[in-house]
Amino acid sequence: MQDVSSNASIPEMDASEVNAFLAEVFPQISIGSAFRVEETSKGFARVRMFFGDRLLRPGGTISGPSMFALADVALYAAVLGTAGRVALAVTTSMNINFLRKPGPADMIGEARLLKLGKRLAVGEVSLFSEGGPELVAHATATYSLP
Amino acid sequence: MQDVSSNASIPEMDASEVNAFLAEVFPQISIGSAFRVEETSKGFARVRMFFGDRLLRPGGTISGPSMFALADVALYAAVLGTAGRVALAVTTSMNINFLRKPGPADMIGEARLLKLGKRLAVGEVSLFSEGGPELVAHATATYSLP
Amino acid sequence: MQDVSSNASIPEMDASEVNAFLAEVFPQISIGSAFRVEETSKGFARVRMFFGDRLLRPGGTISGPSMFALADVALYAAVLGTAGRVALAVTTSMNINFLRKPGPADMIGEARLLKLGKRLAVGEVSLFSEGGPELVAHATATYSLP
Amino acid sequence: MQDVSSNASIPEMDASEVNAFLAEVFPQISIGSAFRVEETSKGFARVRMFFGDRLLRPGGTISGPSMFALADVALYAAVLGTAGRVALAVTTSMNINFLRKPGPADMIGEARLLKLGKRLAVGEVSLFSEGGPELVAHATATYSLP
Repeated sequence: MQDVSSNASIPEMDASEVNAFLAEVFPQISIGSAFRVEETSKGFARVRMFFGDRLLRPGGTISGPSMFALADVALYAAVLGTAGRVALAVTTSMNINFLRKPGPADMIGEARLLKLGKRLAVGEVSLFSEGGPELVAHATATYSLP
Repeated sequence: MQDVSSNASIPEMDASEVNAFLAEVFPQISIGSAFRVEETSKGFARVRMFFGDRLLRPGGTISGPSMFALADVALYAAVLGTAGRVALAVTTSMNINFLRKPGPADMIGEARLLKLGKRLAVGEVSLFSEGGPELVAHATATYSLP
Repeated sequence: MQDVSSNASIPEMDASEVNAFLAEVFPQISIGSAFRVEETSKGFARVRMFFGDRLLRPGGTISGPSMFALADVALYAAVLGTAGRVALAVTTSMNINFLRKPGPADMIGEARLLKLGKRLAVGEVSLFSEGGPELVAHATATYSLP
Repeated sequence: MQDVSSNASIPEMDASEVNAFLAEVFPQISIGSAFRVEETSKGFARVRMFFGDRLLRPGGTISGPSMFALADVALYAAVLGTAGRVALAVTTSMNINFLRKPGPADMIGEARLLKLGKRLAVGEVSLFSEGGPELVAHATATYSLP
């Protein structure tokens, strides 16, 4: 993240603030039971998706829509952590590459903002299985800011 | 779809065969309760996603991961309708643009194959709200064939 | 294109107007020698890229950057034909799939707008070789409107 | 890059070998006059695109097709540096986000492989202006391996 100059290490909203905000504004994201924001800093967020049967596809792998959801929540958390409360930010596009089969475990999404403009935010997310070093999926997405 | 020459109107698997196959091989797709393949022909499929509370975001709109799932099921149905049983086809990438807010209604995905090669299938999907003329979202995706 | 209601068949700028505008504002596009807009209507444009040695890659195929350029010009022509003079429309993203090798011939790009909003236009382009029925490439792109 | 285990720091082809190979196999890339591979290591390549009038758009900015070309060459160099001579690797898709206007200067593409499988390679590229800290564009692309 290059747009944010001062106090680069202090987010506008820390992880607990983002969790509280998401639980209030987007109850269907199931913060606490399905996802948990673990860290935010300027231009960055790390989010955990808890493993559970609802995520599964045959063969024990995690479904594409679940990975899409993790990427979306992680980037939104990075926008919130960097820009503060922007409840109405809307996902306008996402490009996601599925690289390897995830195992039956929690997944971690690490999101980095590539640009935070007045009207658009663009970011990328790397998705890992808990404890695995390899990338499972990678996404880039654009958000329209209100 | 240009790769398939003869009997262009007769799919390898019709809608009821694709529904039966998906229910057997991918029970988590909830064919019958969440999705229903309505039509297949060579290079094409139309799939309905039933409206329900599980899809909702605040404001009554349908979530991004749900639309991702509909796009994925519709393109997979087009691959099955055109190539027959390829249970192990894997989504390798998807690019999705969210264009307008869908209302609280069933959504329809119309998928067309752009290429069906030996190793890769590429297609596009247009997503509509039931009864609405306007595109709600549009996706292109790539599948690796076994 | 669903946003434009009345006089759906009459473009804001016809093909010759778009050609003149592009030649004036973007001389590097080489309208007349490299590209020519052949038709515009509301939500649509067809653009020809003249074959020439500058486009070639080994094996007689046309380079990826040349196809990217054709997709970009065709979508921009569709925006101009639909919205009129918007000289400062900026490409913010493009997703392009290369499906088949084009032969040594002119290429045709047929662009359709999927959305024309106040701030963003989104469209798709199908690229063909002159005289060939098969899709050579397919792109979707987003433009930021001034 | 996680697929390549041993001797992670020693590329299969170093920068001068990749430059010689590209000049031989893809003369239209104009290695030496338009592009130069500056560094390769396992899973990585850095490529310079020399500034010149051919790249320009009005306002002194560099054209989208030129940035597409730099992203493509940089990722191809990363594939060559990591896997060795794979002359027939073919770009099957690219997703590119244009984030800021580049100035009239050389551009640098830094490519990282996200996956190098038997049939597909996937990577991402960050594009900068020489001397500027900010991302100008970001791309992800897929290559089909012979």
